[in-house]
Amino acid sequence: MSAQPTHPLRIGICGLGTVAQGVLQVLRENRESIRARAGRDIQVVRVASRTPKPEVDLLGAEFSTDLATITEDDSLDVVIELIGGETAALHLVRDQLTRGRAVVTANKAILATHGDELIELVRTHGGLLAFEAAVAGGIPIIDTLTRSLAANRIRWLAGIINGTCNYILTAMTGQGKPFDQALAEAQKLGYAEADPTFDVEGIDAAHKLTVLGALAFQIGYRFRDVYTEGISDISVEDIQYARELGYRIKHLGIARMTPAGVQMRVHPALIPETELLASVDGVMNAVLVNGNAAGDTLYYGAGAGALPTASSVVADVIEFARGQKPYLPALVSDNEIRVLPIEEVTSGYYLKIPSLDKPGVFARVATILSEHDISIEAAIQKEQAVHTETQEAWVPIIILTEPVQESVMNAAIAEVQQLPAIVGEIRRIRVELLGDD
Amino acid sequence: MSAQPTHPLRIGICGLGTVAQGVLQVLRENRESIRARAGRDIQVVRVASRTPKPEVDLLGAEFSTDLATITEDDSLDVVIELIGGETAALHLVRDQLTRGRAVVTANKAILATHGDELIELVRTHGGLLAFEAAVAGGIPIIDTLTRSLAANRIRWLAGIINGTCNYILTAMTGQGKPFDQALAEAQKLGYAEADPTFDVEGIDAAHKLTVLGALAFQIGYRFRDVYTEGISDISVEDIQYARELGYRIKHLGIARMTPAGVQMRVHPALIPETELLASVDGVMNAVLVNGNAAGDTLYYGAGAGALPTASSVVADVIEFARGQKPYLPALVSDNEIRVLPIEEVTSGYYLKIPSLDKPGVFARVATILSEHDISIEAAIQKEQAVHTETQEAWVPIIILTEPVQESVMNAAIAEVQQLPAIVGEIRRIRVELLGDD
Repeated sequence: MSAQPTHPLRIGICGLGTVAQGVLQVLRENRESIRARAGRDIQVVRVASRTPKPEVDLLGAEFSTDLATITEDDSLDVVIELIGGETAALHLVRDQLTRGRAVVTANKAILATHGDELIELVRTHGGLLAFEAAVAGGIPIIDTLTRSLAANRIRWLAGIINGTCNYILTAMTGQGKPFDQALAEAQKLGYAEADPTFDVEGIDAAHKLTVLGALAFQIGYRFRDVYTEGISDISVEDIQYARELGYRIKHLGIARMTPAGVQMRVHPALIPETELLASVDGVMNAVLVNGNAAGDTLYYGAGAGALPTASSVVADVIEFARGQKPYLPALVSDNEIRVLPIEEVTSGYYLKIPSLDKPGVFARVATILSEHDISIEAAIQKEQAVHTETQEAWVPIIILTEPVQESVMNAAIAEVQQLPAIVGEIRRIRVELLGDD
Repeated sequence: MSAQPTHPLRIGICGLGTVAQGVLQVLRENRESIRARAGRDIQVVRVASRTPKPEVDLLGAEFSTDLATITEDDSLDVVIELIGGETAALHLVRDQLTRGRAVVTANKAILATHGDELIELVRTHGGLLAFEAAVAGGIPIIDTLTRSLAANRIRWLAGIINGTCNYILTAMTGQGKPFDQALAEAQKLGYAEADPTFDVEGIDAAHKLTVLGALAFQIGYRFRDVYTEGISDISVEDIQYARELGYRIKHLGIARMTPAGVQMRVHPALIPETELLASVDGVMNAVLVNGNAAGDTLYYGAGAGALPTASSVVADVIEFARGQKPYLPALVSDNEIRVLPIEEVTSGYYLKIPSLDKPGVFARVATILSEHDISIEAAIQKEQAVHTETQEAWVPIIILTEPVQESVMNAAIAEVQQLPAIVGEIRRIRVELLGDD
């Protein structure tokens, strides 16, 4: 091992948004302890951003509105990309890696969609790329998968990796607020964007899951293969029925290795209330990882926010200062494992079947499920309601099934849906037992 | 950064107990994925142990009953110390570090009691020392404190770091079993030793807390300064009363930086049932860390067992294979921060005061507490019981106080204890709110 240099590590920060300001704050407030950990000073030499913010303490760095002052300055040891967005950030990281430079980014979107290309650039040009902050903010899940659990074959992981969804589901669960109201509240508190699609429809979580899957399974960055479903269809009633059955509904990112291929999926799921993940509430994130040596381990913390995200960005910088190299995952082309289409995924199901309150309906439904070899684990029949249009009396039949392949469940649901006694669309939510298959 | 070597990393394993067998199993079963992560093969060249175990697959390594075959073999890149115990292990690690070698150990006892000496040897002779497996088995808490959270100033950490204690308290809580019965059950299941003192009196947890404190606060290995209390005095009644007040009783290791000095303490504590730590049950471990950037993060997993511990040992080996260097903490002498005596620690208290069931007793107790400026947060007065000796009617008065310095609480308890209406020893358990002071 070569001796570590002692001169200051010279860094340039691209962007001056909340995370970049968090990075500057952490470097200022923890200067001494960071120097002790890194073995040398970390010096912010340049900051560049479209909009000057004279109120921000740049720690003596030279400011410019021109990113080229950083990207063209060969005296910098590390370039930190915090401009966000996709196009310009991708261009910047691509350019810097092509020059063989050391880059730190928090940008999950460019990793999810162009991760293979970026890793290839690192391989070809001998640069370095670190991205602890890209997934789950202050939780060191990247370090964990690439270094701490390196002795394991990862069997599966399941994470609450979108704080907006978790905040909304927590408010729906705890206070019985409907989705729209919980979303409005999240927006008011700054936990959801004005256009919340990216979060509530699961795209953000799919980006993060793509990164986790690439590291856990060495399958490359397969964003296009991730099955993605959001939470906008979840009702307070679903949450209540789930609770009666001993479950909580959480929005999960799940990656699982199976003999047939890898499952990569983002969707709401019922999980047993006794699981630690079921108690992860509000905007907090957590990832449960199952490795064949370590067994189940769980990592919990703030998934967003200026300082938690900065904690991870600066951790990457400190590792560079110590002369440590981030792990380089495999590419899609190295390891062409199939990602299973959702129809081939097996899981339990929660079904809400709105049916006329007539004798024999439940028996008919049970028969159809049985004909498809689907076992019922639990069922509850709820109090009568009156159909708004037909004025007929109806009840929701709630069924929890044993694990079954999705294509089989689809066929069974289609058949049940055709029964004359079924008065509305059957709702289905997957059940995750967070154990071995 | 120097190029990584590609020849196999040659390792020697000292010891052939359960953890060593776990290491061999992990290296065998995960050979390919480990090679991919490490960038080279990891070759077990030698294994030495007092007792041959012909049934164990040594992966082609040469076996000897003489440790010197490993310690004297300069062709080995890494020596793994898994012989356990203190004297011989310390001698071995000390010797190897004096020769400037790379050592991996899972031995918390030698770190806790001689950590400063060993770190000094690494500094002086340029060797390497890694010990992820020494604390909390498969949970990567060492990596987390030294690398992932390196940008933070750690404010405090609190952990369930002894699986035996947690198993016993979980059985007492869930099934109302008294301590002795829960301990016997733990012994039967192999979760407790025949002589359980080391675990149930908190010594094992104090060893681990010493290691965590050294890394979190750069204060050296201060085992002698750790306040240590076990769980053998906890009763099922205490657990029930705590639950009525919304708390669980857990055995915690707590390290906290305060302006007056560092708190280093191991003892049972009431924690709010809404805390994730309160849901960590059975033999599982978890550590909650508060950093000034990341905020609260929590790490959960198996704290013991052959494979989880091997997961951490092999992770250290893989880092060596990748040419990465473990972090070197400061020594006591670098950073002479005072560890606070327990009398100077501030916390809330649960008090169980056995008193005659007469008017005015509670008021008298409350007055004494108030005279010591101790605020009562909650109180419950339980149903009457009859004193076994005097046949007098008595009731336990249960009080939860606001945080107060222990010396003040000691004085107040001494005064209350003198009241004629108090018919037995007052029990006190600390309350940890797991927040900022």
